[in-house]
Amino acid sequence: MTTAGYYAAVDWGTSSFRLWVIGEDGAVLAERRSAEGMTTAAKTGFHKVLDGHLAAVSAPPHLPIIICGMAGARQGWREAGYIETPAPLAEIAGRAIAIPDVDRDIRILPGLAQRDQRYPDVMRGEETQLLGAVALLGSGRHLVCMPGTHSKWVRLAADKVEGFSTFMTGELFEAVSRHTILSHAVAGAETFPADSSAFAEAVSHARHNPALATNLLFSVRAGQLLHGTGAADARAKLSGALIGLEIAGALSGFGPRESVCLVGSGALGRLYRTALEGQGLNVRVVDADEAVRAGLSAAAQSIWPL
Amino acid sequence: MTTAGYYAAVDWGTSSFRLWVIGEDGAVLAERRSAEGMTTAAKTGFHKVLDGHLAAVSAPPHLPIIICGMAGARQGWREAGYIETPAPLAEIAGRAIAIPDVDRDIRILPGLAQRDQRYPDVMRGEETQLLGAVALLGSGRHLVCMPGTHSKWVRLAADKVEGFSTFMTGELFEAVSRHTILSHAVAGAETFPADSSAFAEAVSHARHNPALATNLLFSVRAGQLLHGTGAADARAKLSGALIGLEIAGALSGFGPRESVCLVGSGALGRLYRTALEGQGLNVRVVDADEAVRAGLSAAAQSIWPL
Repeated sequence: MTTAGYYAAVDWGTSSFRLWVIGEDGAVLAERRSAEGMTTAAKTGFHKVLDGHLAAVSAPPHLPIIICGMAGARQGWREAGYIETPAPLAEIAGRAIAIPDVDRDIRILPGLAQRDQRYPDVMRGEETQLLGAVALLGSGRHLVCMPGTHSKWVRLAADKVEGFSTFMTGELFEAVSRHTILSHAVAGAETFPADSSAFAEAVSHARHNPALATNLLFSVRAGQLLHGTGAADARAKLSGALIGLEIAGALSGFGPRESVCLVGSGALGRLYRTALEGQGLNVRVVDADEAVRAGLSAAAQSIWPL
Repeated sequence: MTTAGYYAAVDWGTSSFRLWVIGEDGAVLAERRSAEGMTTAAKTGFHKVLDGHLAAVSAPPHLPIIICGMAGARQGWREAGYIETPAPLAEIAGRAIAIPDVDRDIRILPGLAQRDQRYPDVMRGEETQLLGAVALLGSGRHLVCMPGTHSKWVRLAADKVEGFSTFMTGELFEAVSRHTILSHAVAGAETFPADSSAFAEAVSHARHNPALATNLLFSVRAGQLLHGTGAADARAKLSGALIGLEIAGALSGFGPRESVCLVGSGALGRLYRTALEGQGLNVRVVDADEAVRAGLSAAAQSIWPL
């Protein structure tokens, strides 16, 4: 495996680690993926985890490393701080922090913070996806949806993050499906079809009746008891209720929109696309993996210009 | 301990067991409380749990037993079915089922069901509280709030349940505070003051912006990171967000009201009273323990008239 390279880019989340070795021409020379996210690495050691992956791709000793995500959290490798909104994305690279006392140049990018006294918000990792997304989307005004454990909705204007809101959709889905009475209703189905009518109906109901969201959740259990609702439909309804509530919240917070830019990938990206289009929105999709790589590349090129 | 008696009344929930031996004059002759709810009793045996408590109060061999709650669920002792809405509360006693092949007269009261195809709902135990509450409230039209793991809001008219809605407020509070990122924010505080301004503000925000509920939840975490929000305030905000969302849903589902009857007790009852009064509602409180005992008594007197 050839591993001469310009730099290595790392997306280090709460529960996942991804590394790409990038050549001077921008090509991906090597890739690593593992479950050694912040939670694991905080126990086993961030440096050790990173070195293991670099050794596995025979990275040269002085290859510089650019990192985004939870490695920069207070519980991470080293706290990388926050840029406050309104936040020009161009500032991200300049606010990277360096890991001291290591034998190579390792930088961690900062997150973004909205220091509202009552309704504060933070992101860490998504700012780098946004930096990459604007390179793909072009400047201008965009409402961006970034689904996940903590979904982010972002108002972008002229490459600046004007404001953003986090919705706990993905984490609530996990907590509700595993740790409440609904666990019985969804047991036995790990997925559901993307064209599920139960999903579409729940999205629509929650989007138009957000106050009734937790009532809609309980109807999943009641449906199992009274109508024998199957596990796949139950899971679809739970997912649709939470995603519909998120869409209602984002559109109430940022005002009604005609189009939205979806930074997603895989099954979750397809699900959000279905949900958003079902609510009459024009959806422009940016692949989340491409976006984070583009953002890390933009930062690396700014820090280590060729 | 004197245990001659008219009957024993049992409120058998998911996670709790309560028994009262009632005399012919309505006096409570003995009382037992334990954590042997349905979940435990389904493993150890319902008959055995009940017999243990009856022996502990030296109940006479032929004392009849009236039971409400999850003992009548499909996963309970014996399924007691549902009365469908609109449901006259007077029918509850007549629809009790008897436990077969036991040496005393043991009856379990049915639950209520709303067999809407898309948004079905069920209750089990609360119907008996309602039966008792109307004896205390008088007939007429009432909007009743019954807080708990699965809070119930009920529209009563002329001793009939016209409709009801369940909100998963209590269970969501447990799941979110234990199994999400907010567990860090609330760790170290088991309670918060009832006059907490963080609670009141969160109730109000969620009641008026229900679509932003899961965004409000995440702000609890962000507040800890950015402003050092303490655990008690974080817990208050989480609780307020979920209760405010419930109030928003109930008032959107049943229409705006000026007054509400709160069937509650203890700290949770006080919290809901604060929340409801903070939203400008007149609150009439019925003690939940008294209500369930009054409901079980009404059913017992109907089944075993003196």
